[in-house]
Amino acid sequence: MATEGKTIRCRAAVAWKPGEVLSVEEVEIAPPKAHEVRIKVVASGVCHTDWAYLHGAGKGMELRPFPLVLGHEGAGVVESVGADVTRFSPGDKVIPLFLPQCGECECCLSPKTNLCKANWAKTQQGVLADGTSRITCKGQQVFQFLGVSSFAEYTVTLETNLTKIHPDAVLERVCLLGCGVATGYGAAVNVAKVEKGSVCVVFGLGAVGLAAVMGCVGAGAARVIGVDVNPDKFSRAREFGVSDCVNPRDHGRPVQDVLVDMTAGGADYALECVGDVDVMRSALESCRSAWGVCVIVGWTELEEMKLRPFHLLMGRTLKGTYFGGWKSVTDIPRLVEQHLAGQLKLDEFVTHTLTLGEVNHAFQLLAGGKSIRSIIKM
Amino acid sequence: MATEGKTIRCRAAVAWKPGEVLSVEEVEIAPPKAHEVRIKVVASGVCHTDWAYLHGAGKGMELRPFPLVLGHEGAGVVESVGADVTRFSPGDKVIPLFLPQCGECECCLSPKTNLCKANWAKTQQGVLADGTSRITCKGQQVFQFLGVSSFAEYTVTLETNLTKIHPDAVLERVCLLGCGVATGYGAAVNVAKVEKGSVCVVFGLGAVGLAAVMGCVGAGAARVIGVDVNPDKFSRAREFGVSDCVNPRDHGRPVQDVLVDMTAGGADYALECVGDVDVMRSALESCRSAWGVCVIVGWTELEEMKLRPFHLLMGRTLKGTYFGGWKSVTDIPRLVEQHLAGQLKLDEFVTHTLTLGEVNHAFQLLAGGKSIRSIIKM
Repeated sequence: MATEGKTIRCRAAVAWKPGEVLSVEEVEIAPPKAHEVRIKVVASGVCHTDWAYLHGAGKGMELRPFPLVLGHEGAGVVESVGADVTRFSPGDKVIPLFLPQCGECECCLSPKTNLCKANWAKTQQGVLADGTSRITCKGQQVFQFLGVSSFAEYTVTLETNLTKIHPDAVLERVCLLGCGVATGYGAAVNVAKVEKGSVCVVFGLGAVGLAAVMGCVGAGAARVIGVDVNPDKFSRAREFGVSDCVNPRDHGRPVQDVLVDMTAGGADYALECVGDVDVMRSALESCRSAWGVCVIVGWTELEEMKLRPFHLLMGRTLKGTYFGGWKSVTDIPRLVEQHLAGQLKLDEFVTHTLTLGEVNHAFQLLAGGKSIRSIIKM
Repeated sequence: MATEGKTIRCRAAVAWKPGEVLSVEEVEIAPPKAHEVRIKVVASGVCHTDWAYLHGAGKGMELRPFPLVLGHEGAGVVESVGADVTRFSPGDKVIPLFLPQCGECECCLSPKTNLCKANWAKTQQGVLADGTSRITCKGQQVFQFLGVSSFAEYTVTLETNLTKIHPDAVLERVCLLGCGVATGYGAAVNVAKVEKGSVCVVFGLGAVGLAAVMGCVGAGAARVIGVDVNPDKFSRAREFGVSDCVNPRDHGRPVQDVLVDMTAGGADYALECVGDVDVMRSALESCRSAWGVCVIVGWTELEEMKLRPFHLLMGRTLKGTYFGGWKSVTDIPRLVEQHLAGQLKLDEFVTHTLTLGEVNHAFQLLAGGKSIRSIIKM
């Protein structure tokens, strides 16, 4: 392409400081270095984690370096590749991945985990393998959120943090497989390993929770109970297959007690898709003794939860998941193909399609519980 | 036998009130009712849980009804059987079980759990299926700890809470399979499912912890690190196969940090055999991310632990176990046979053999960290 090897000037939503609105600015995207790929971002979902790192920094979340371009649920097309990149070519449809899969580390070689730690500390700090980002604005380095930064017209990722997908994929939809939908769906099928005929409870009926519902239903759960304090979420949840909707505020006692009664002893599986430590405890206690499995999906870095070990001694298991247990580079293209084959919902998660200039509005919709997923089309 | 159908007068160690020393008294043991078996107790181990329900009532433990005959790690010989008992005959060697296996409930029919709940609430409250105990003293009903009460020359259990063992078994040794040794060993092999070549950490090097070490070693662990604040436990732990002994008091930083450094990232498996909520947290954090499994073995009913969900989100699993995951009636006789075949240590746990009149001394040894297991010979 004509831009290969050159810096690209384009627009990105820059977070100059924690807690402030994003500012759409002209930025420079440097060419990819060795083992890096530059992407024209076509679409990006707006995930609660983007919002949380902006507004929850130092509370639930670690303070990440600013200025920062958020966005980690994108899809796009390869613009150019750096030296030594062999798996990608200009024009490839791709999904950038905040979780890498290097294919070589002990985690990648183990069937037990997807937690490749290649350049983990660096991408968590907003830089690529060489310790710098590829984004500058007004002469200043701008950090790349989780090594991705999809709230931009172009970005550069490490080749280990990118996967090529089917050319028929609709990028404004499959971007959701870059985080929320893959995470919730995988939490049910890979981590909880929901079994046919089981009873499941999903806490939080946003995009991640609905994806968990989709996983439970797909795995053959006999009953999926959805829990949310926002009853506006219930009708869509029912469309996804939730059989009973519970609003904790409708009950004068702990929701776990309500759920244990509804299920004659507790759920086989509970999935916490909120990221709230009190909800996590409710989720654990809503599982049945003997074999109940509770999976923490919602994200919090710093907070602590309390639990009674007694609930574990009575046979419950507490687990967590990062990116739904998927080995990112190899598994996400398969999920794209499942979607193309009509086996995995994506359209049904999208409530709003907005422009990059409307990204702060997307955050308002999210924080106000008015959206499931907003898609930013670049 | 000449005593069949009659009340037996014999001696038992009665706990009249929480926190007081036990008093060896003459008691009456009523004949077994339908589906019950009366046993001549030959030996009983003295377990930390006996001590904890006497001295920790209302703190870590629920207050159970008193007066009470403690002891739940016994072995004996069937004296007589009640109506409708078909699996036992006088003279059979047996181990009473605080965890039943009725063989019919959904837990018994599931391969996922050993937590049969037949008459659970009743035996937890010290009575048998009909709501009464078979022990009286000075005209007063005396409750049966966990439906067992092995600190007595005779006792009566439900037939679901009893298992027949090999006639060659030495009762002064196999009684340890009624609780501590089975619990720790099973925690490693059934619950953690320790794999060959793995790195394990065992917190607490009492009988349960040493049994966990035995499980780890038996499963082929490459390295078993033992942790205890009492260095007197270390030489025996090394005999059981512990490769490194760590005393948290020797280090000026959290023991989990020491362990993570020693293991280049954390253990594959950590087993908490203490029952202390702070140690439970240390155990979880001493596991490696991606696939570390922490099993809570130590018992506490009421206390709460704190943890960072982040440690779960990074791929750790937290589980608990009751009686090591063994299906009590069917599995314990197999462990007895493994012991008879020389595959399972028991003698090595026994540090003291005492009389019933010395039971308070056994508690002192236990609380003072001077014993691994004391056996009371009736």
